[in-house]
Amino acid sequence: MPVLTLADLQVRLGGTLRGDGGTLIRGAASLERAGADQIAFLLSAKYLAQARASRAGGLIIPESLSESLPQACLAVANPHAAFARAVALLHPEPGLPVGVHPTAAIAEDADVHAEARVGPHVCIGAGARVGARSQIHAGCVIGPGARVGEDCLLHPRVTVQHGCVVGDRAILHSGCVIGSDGFGLAWEPDAEGGNWLKVPQIGRVVLGNDVELGANTCIDRGALDDTVIEDGVKMDNLVHIAHNCRIGRHTAIAGCVGMAGSTSIGAYCQISGAAMISGHISIGDKVTISGGSVVAKNLRSPGVYTSVMPLMPHEDWLRNAAHLRHLDALAGRLKALESRINDLHKDDPA
Amino acid sequence: MPVLTLADLQVRLGGTLRGDGGTLIRGAASLERAGADQIAFLLSAKYLAQARASRAGGLIIPESLSESLPQACLAVANPHAAFARAVALLHPEPGLPVGVHPTAAIAEDADVHAEARVGPHVCIGAGARVGARSQIHAGCVIGPGARVGEDCLLHPRVTVQHGCVVGDRAILHSGCVIGSDGFGLAWEPDAEGGNWLKVPQIGRVVLGNDVELGANTCIDRGALDDTVIEDGVKMDNLVHIAHNCRIGRHTAIAGCVGMAGSTSIGAYCQISGAAMISGHISIGDKVTISGGSVVAKNLRSPGVYTSVMPLMPHEDWLRNAAHLRHLDALAGRLKALESRINDLHKDDPA
Amino acid sequence: MPVLTLADLQVRLGGTLRGDGGTLIRGAASLERAGADQIAFLLSAKYLAQARASRAGGLIIPESLSESLPQACLAVANPHAAFARAVALLHPEPGLPVGVHPTAAIAEDADVHAEARVGPHVCIGAGARVGARSQIHAGCVIGPGARVGEDCLLHPRVTVQHGCVVGDRAILHSGCVIGSDGFGLAWEPDAEGGNWLKVPQIGRVVLGNDVELGANTCIDRGALDDTVIEDGVKMDNLVHIAHNCRIGRHTAIAGCVGMAGSTSIGAYCQISGAAMISGHISIGDKVTISGGSVVAKNLRSPGVYTSVMPLMPHEDWLRNAAHLRHLDALAGRLKALESRINDLHKDDPA
Repeated sequence: MPVLTLADLQVRLGGTLRGDGGTLIRGAASLERAGADQIAFLLSAKYLAQARASRAGGLIIPESLSESLPQACLAVANPHAAFARAVALLHPEPGLPVGVHPTAAIAEDADVHAEARVGPHVCIGAGARVGARSQIHAGCVIGPGARVGEDCLLHPRVTVQHGCVVGDRAILHSGCVIGSDGFGLAWEPDAEGGNWLKVPQIGRVVLGNDVELGANTCIDRGALDDTVIEDGVKMDNLVHIAHNCRIGRHTAIAGCVGMAGSTSIGAYCQISGAAMISGHISIGDKVTISGGSVVAKNLRSPGVYTSVMPLMPHEDWLRNAAHLRHLDALAGRLKALESRINDLHKDDPA
Repeated sequence: MPVLTLADLQVRLGGTLRGDGGTLIRGAASLERAGADQIAFLLSAKYLAQARASRAGGLIIPESLSESLPQACLAVANPHAAFARAVALLHPEPGLPVGVHPTAAIAEDADVHAEARVGPHVCIGAGARVGARSQIHAGCVIGPGARVGEDCLLHPRVTVQHGCVVGDRAILHSGCVIGSDGFGLAWEPDAEGGNWLKVPQIGRVVLGNDVELGANTCIDRGALDDTVIEDGVKMDNLVHIAHNCRIGRHTAIAGCVGMAGSTSIGAYCQISGAAMISGHISIGDKVTISGGSVVAKNLRSPGVYTSVMPLMPHEDWLRNAAHLRHLDALAGRLKALESRINDLHKDDPA
Repeated sequence: MPVLTLADLQVRLGGTLRGDGGTLIRGAASLERAGADQIAFLLSAKYLAQARASRAGGLIIPESLSESLPQACLAVANPHAAFARAVALLHPEPGLPVGVHPTAAIAEDADVHAEARVGPHVCIGAGARVGARSQIHAGCVIGPGARVGEDCLLHPRVTVQHGCVVGDRAILHSGCVIGSDGFGLAWEPDAEGGNWLKVPQIGRVVLGNDVELGANTCIDRGALDDTVIEDGVKMDNLVHIAHNCRIGRHTAIAGCVGMAGSTSIGAYCQISGAAMISGHISIGDKVTISGGSVVAKNLRSPGVYTSVMPLMPHEDWLRNAAHLRHLDALAGRLKALESRINDLHKDDPA
């Protein structure tokens, strides 16, 4: 593991030093757990008490923080981002050696860059391409004609199906599937009641640059046109993106979200966990969807949207929920009462 | 890629030609994107304006359409189905060569048909069987005693666990798991508070013919009896089917749906995305469940069922949702008011 | 398959015999399907009629059951647990042979116990450890420095990422991912609108003993500290546990549940299917969450909690749900009416 001084970190991250720049830093940790050779960070003055109690040797702090702290500090404009960079410098991930593992099955005409790193039991199909410095970990399958850009990191057991495109610097977590068929079915009536005919899915998935997709997340290929994930989109685990969706740049999608077909989402959106988005709708830029919400209509204005029943003790729920089946009747009764009262007042000579 | 004339397509798909049957077709595309050597389709007169503007060389149209179009047309009873067949003819998927890849690990007594196609790093267990013309792509694992029918397509990294049965013409997408253990636990109280004892799951999964399952979808094996997926059932990605469920023929299940144990669903149902279906219930034929709905009771009548909070701007939601915890009280207050008004009217000499 | 007499089962399971202890038992089955050489069980007197009609050769029954049955019976305190043990004795799962399959790629300095069983195309990284009698099925990937305990069962295609820890007797189902990166992002404003910077995730996943995780379930590694799953926790398929969560011992989590980051759940909880739990909250011991519920606040008291819209025919839903967007206004109208009626009564000379 690398050892850096706080002054080294300042050179890499910018910011101003407060205290001993010679402090040796061997790792990053949380305020609670950091030791004398580790660096921690605080986002705001809210964490001052924790910071004072911390045994960290160094702290990354907001430059707006005027309070002095017992530790050597690096004051920066964006402590979260600076800390992220510090962690990356101090904790490089174990990587594959350059070259192709002898157990990998690479098609003769696949174009794997000489500086790529390909692990055991990987399979790369005919005409596929893997760019410089990309790491393809054990058990990944890259289909015929697929393209993986430069500096990508495919964790173990990722599938990139035939013809799909992965941009530069993608991070695809284990179990991720890029380019499974969209759920395209045509109904055929017949004498016995009918059946579903598969509609072949001939579009691709096209991932922009700097995309990260979580474990076991699935992105379906387009039916005819492509499914498009723009630059900088980040998705968590177990997300389902159906065929022909388009996700705008720098949108973040949390775990267990599902998005039905042909829906487009703008840039800079945040879709919280387990939200479910219907097909054939359009969501604008900078929309935030709360966790567990169901979105079934277009959303053009930025803002936060929610559709969740509030949580209650089950006994309360039983009592309250019973009325939801009769809410229209209840509203009707209220309206009738209002009329009756209005009539009473009308009768009122006052 | 194959090149066909519109007349060739008529021979294969039926229907009647309007315009030049000699039009060369090299691919299928959407109305918007199709070029002069591509075929597109329209479902109904609703898309006439788009069709007129399309540069497609040929169109598949409903035979009911009386309007004339600038393109050569093939008029058919079911344009969606005919187009699906045209796409399959024009865009054959890249397939594996016949035979077994040298890196595959096949048990000595496994019965792999001579016309099957088995990719790299596949593992086929003792006594397992793979039928004629089935393709088993890279990294699939077929457990001991499992059976895969004829003309199946297992995409990369599918697991079929021991003893499970996959019918003919199945399409299993990447990451799909057939025959994982059901979630069977027996509670054992003990001095420290108790613990869960695993109940071994010895049933199988039995898939009928023409079943398609999406990427990373999981079907648990039965506890004692089998989990049964009937002919023609189609499921999308990331669906969870628990032990001992039974899904009736030609039912379609969209992405992210979960179904708890021992539930049975009839034929021709449509379960929309992210619906959650409780265990030990029974749903009849031709039931449609809206996306994101929770089903916790038997549904005997065909129809559409929904249980979703409507989406609102978060500020509205905060105001409205607060009352849901007190809806029973609110209904009580309404009833009390009604009594009081009735009393007033009773007092009223009129 | 083993053949046991009912008396053999009594020796292994305890309880008291009623009827012929020499009855030969070759398997376990449900009451409905069991034959003369099979054992079934009933949980309570509720199933007496089914038991009487059963063709099972032997039954495991509650010791509290006073009614006599036509079958040979083993009466025990906990029939479900005793039956679970009987099934395990009668239906041993097919296992791998001891040793390492020649196609596995094992790092030179990996420590794989001589009694471990490692299947085809497995990959075990540098410095990783696999304990005695553990089975690592085909296509699993165990990262550098990861540790898998004794007597574990890793089904095909499981990923355990670098540095993660799996306790003894773990069962990890196919497609499971342990130690994918948490969804850690720092926002960096820039001239073009900003982008997400990845925060490297350097914590581990630590699974206690006797943990079972379902197919395609994903447990993210901690950002700085660890994600911790305590002893005896059981999870079903397609569950998502985000970074830095802590799940207390013997908690059971059903399929499709999502849990956002830094949330802690107590011991002996039951989280039903498709529940969604927000980040940074704390749930105490013995809490039960109903299926499909959204939990966004701390829950300190044991009990059952629910947040689900009740299911309705869609036409009813349309009528009822419309009022939910105006519930606050409706409550306000009710309050106004109450005031008016109170005023009327005040005016009332009576």
